[in-house]
Amino acid sequence: MITFAAGPSKVYDALPTYLQDACNEGILSANHRSAKFMNLYQETEQLMREKLHMPEDYKLLFTSSATENWEIITQSIVEKASFHIYSGSFGKKWVTFASHINPATGALKIEANQTIDVPNLEIGEEFDVIGITQNETSNASQVRMEYLEEIREKFPEKLIAVDTTSSMAGIDLKFELADIWYASVQKCFGLPAGLGILILSPKAIEQTQRKGERGRYNSLNFILENAEGYQTHYTPNVLGIYLMNRVLQDIPEIQFIDERLRERMLKLETCIAHSKAFKMLVDNEQARSTTVMGVSGSEEMISAVKKEAEKHGMQLGSGYGPLKPTSFRIANFPAITDAEMDKLIGFLSEY
Amino acid sequence: MITFAAGPSKVYDALPTYLQDACNEGILSANHRSAKFMNLYQETEQLMREKLHMPEDYKLLFTSSATENWEIITQSIVEKASFHIYSGSFGKKWVTFASHINPATGALKIEANQTIDVPNLEIGEEFDVIGITQNETSNASQVRMEYLEEIREKFPEKLIAVDTTSSMAGIDLKFELADIWYASVQKCFGLPAGLGILILSPKAIEQTQRKGERGRYNSLNFILENAEGYQTHYTPNVLGIYLMNRVLQDIPEIQFIDERLRERMLKLETCIAHSKAFKMLVDNEQARSTTVMGVSGSEEMISAVKKEAEKHGMQLGSGYGPLKPTSFRIANFPAITDAEMDKLIGFLSEY
Repeated sequence: MITFAAGPSKVYDALPTYLQDACNEGILSANHRSAKFMNLYQETEQLMREKLHMPEDYKLLFTSSATENWEIITQSIVEKASFHIYSGSFGKKWVTFASHINPATGALKIEANQTIDVPNLEIGEEFDVIGITQNETSNASQVRMEYLEEIREKFPEKLIAVDTTSSMAGIDLKFELADIWYASVQKCFGLPAGLGILILSPKAIEQTQRKGERGRYNSLNFILENAEGYQTHYTPNVLGIYLMNRVLQDIPEIQFIDERLRERMLKLETCIAHSKAFKMLVDNEQARSTTVMGVSGSEEMISAVKKEAEKHGMQLGSGYGPLKPTSFRIANFPAITDAEMDKLIGFLSEY
Repeated sequence: MITFAAGPSKVYDALPTYLQDACNEGILSANHRSAKFMNLYQETEQLMREKLHMPEDYKLLFTSSATENWEIITQSIVEKASFHIYSGSFGKKWVTFASHINPATGALKIEANQTIDVPNLEIGEEFDVIGITQNETSNASQVRMEYLEEIREKFPEKLIAVDTTSSMAGIDLKFELADIWYASVQKCFGLPAGLGILILSPKAIEQTQRKGERGRYNSLNFILENAEGYQTHYTPNVLGIYLMNRVLQDIPEIQFIDERLRERMLKLETCIAHSKAFKMLVDNEQARSTTVMGVSGSEEMISAVKKEAEKHGMQLGSGYGPLKPTSFRIANFPAITDAEMDKLIGFLSEY
């Protein structure tokens, strides 16, 4: 069964080999305060620069999950309040977690089909961090880099935090355009779940230090102090970090992955555009995700196509939340091979 | 190289097989909201009852680490304040994390060689939770079940929280004697790091619900609500939970593991007792750990024996914190085979 679920999703085909190597290399018992681990961490950070173009002066940190990152940002970085622009369930959850810690948190909800109207966007002095869900897994929408660039130009004094849970390692992110980036490994990294990634710019680190929040197990200053020596604030998922290292070693540079995903998404879009039974959840091309395709249809058709796909050895991702009965989602993640995606497109073109 | 480090430590020899099975069974891509995961969670909880004798009405929860558990307890369970009895570095860290959230946290420090003098122990009305580091990994001391029993009898109205990071799945814990138990999987479970375990009694769950704390990603009420349907509060380390399930399936019932570890520890104790170069860190047998042996000696001897052991393919665990230069530690964890322990004892008997 090939899974097209949007995460946990299909892992890279080389995972069994990586796991075997991990056993042989003693990774399963590796001490997280040892030189072996510190080298692994340092090398992984360097690979993030080489393969994903993370800037030299940005810092890679490990957390338990993207969910935890929501909380860390408000707890340890935000000084006044964060202002969020979102269209879907995960963006909304981020606002909820942030508001719990800081009731002054602000938000602007847009539609999945809408792009951010930056020229008319007003974010006052009372907000020092702008939160953007770059790729909204729930409704398959996306904020393109050009909007981030406009926001960066319009609000140069504010920190920008970007949720790329389901796009990092899939599309070519311009890290310079924001200060805080986070993701999970079970999406575009093609890895098993159990590890969160948090990336900070020098400006974000500076603000964290100035705020000086500490004392919690996930206080960012504590995480950063440990990371200074390539260690972590708790006994981490060492195996997960090793697997991430191996994936980063083996993947091509991100611009090639990005190009491949865009080509495939175009084929998938064309297929859905020609379908009588289905239409795309996001019909505005400018707002449509590159890594997750949302497809809507009648309840009967959605239920039927999911069953039929399973008969053909393919598992479609369910719609999320309120969209569950009337949509399905397809992960266009790099670990899915072109042949697998072609098979799916062939299948869907019958509808 | 056989590692006798006290964690991350040697994993069970069957781990490569479990990992291969995980690949074949689709665990690496398993969705954490799927029936597959929920069954895995439920079965693992049941195995904790069958193999480790966790009571029927106690609940198994998953967190990122024991470190996170320190925080969760104070944040989500403690109503007035917790009072801690500890002798070493990890007990002290627990007090520090608890005090950050609740400055009214109290503590009594005892020596590693000391047992808890329960008849003379006074814990006032201002404390509703008693925290005990049952197995102190840093100085190789232990609080035996009989002391927990005395404390339970003397303070029946208080909740008791027990740190068994390096003893759960190694010794026969009497779960009925306390309400909150936690551990890490990279110690006596013989698993790779990256998963924390938290176990609650009905009384602890009741107090958590009464306190009603929620809104954080690791708020215990949120964790419990998810666990009700065998789900988790974040995308968990599904592979880690699967591996824990496999280990629990394959190990004997805890009383047999307990007996085996005690027999081995006796041999190791006898060996150190006869040594001219070394002595046990904890010479009071009543306070000495069953799962971690601390050995002290001169700086020169400690350094020399560690080097010599490596030449023989064995890695001794370093001493912890201030004890680092003048001690080493030996994990007497179940994943270490009897033959491996015999080899170590043979080696040490030359000193």
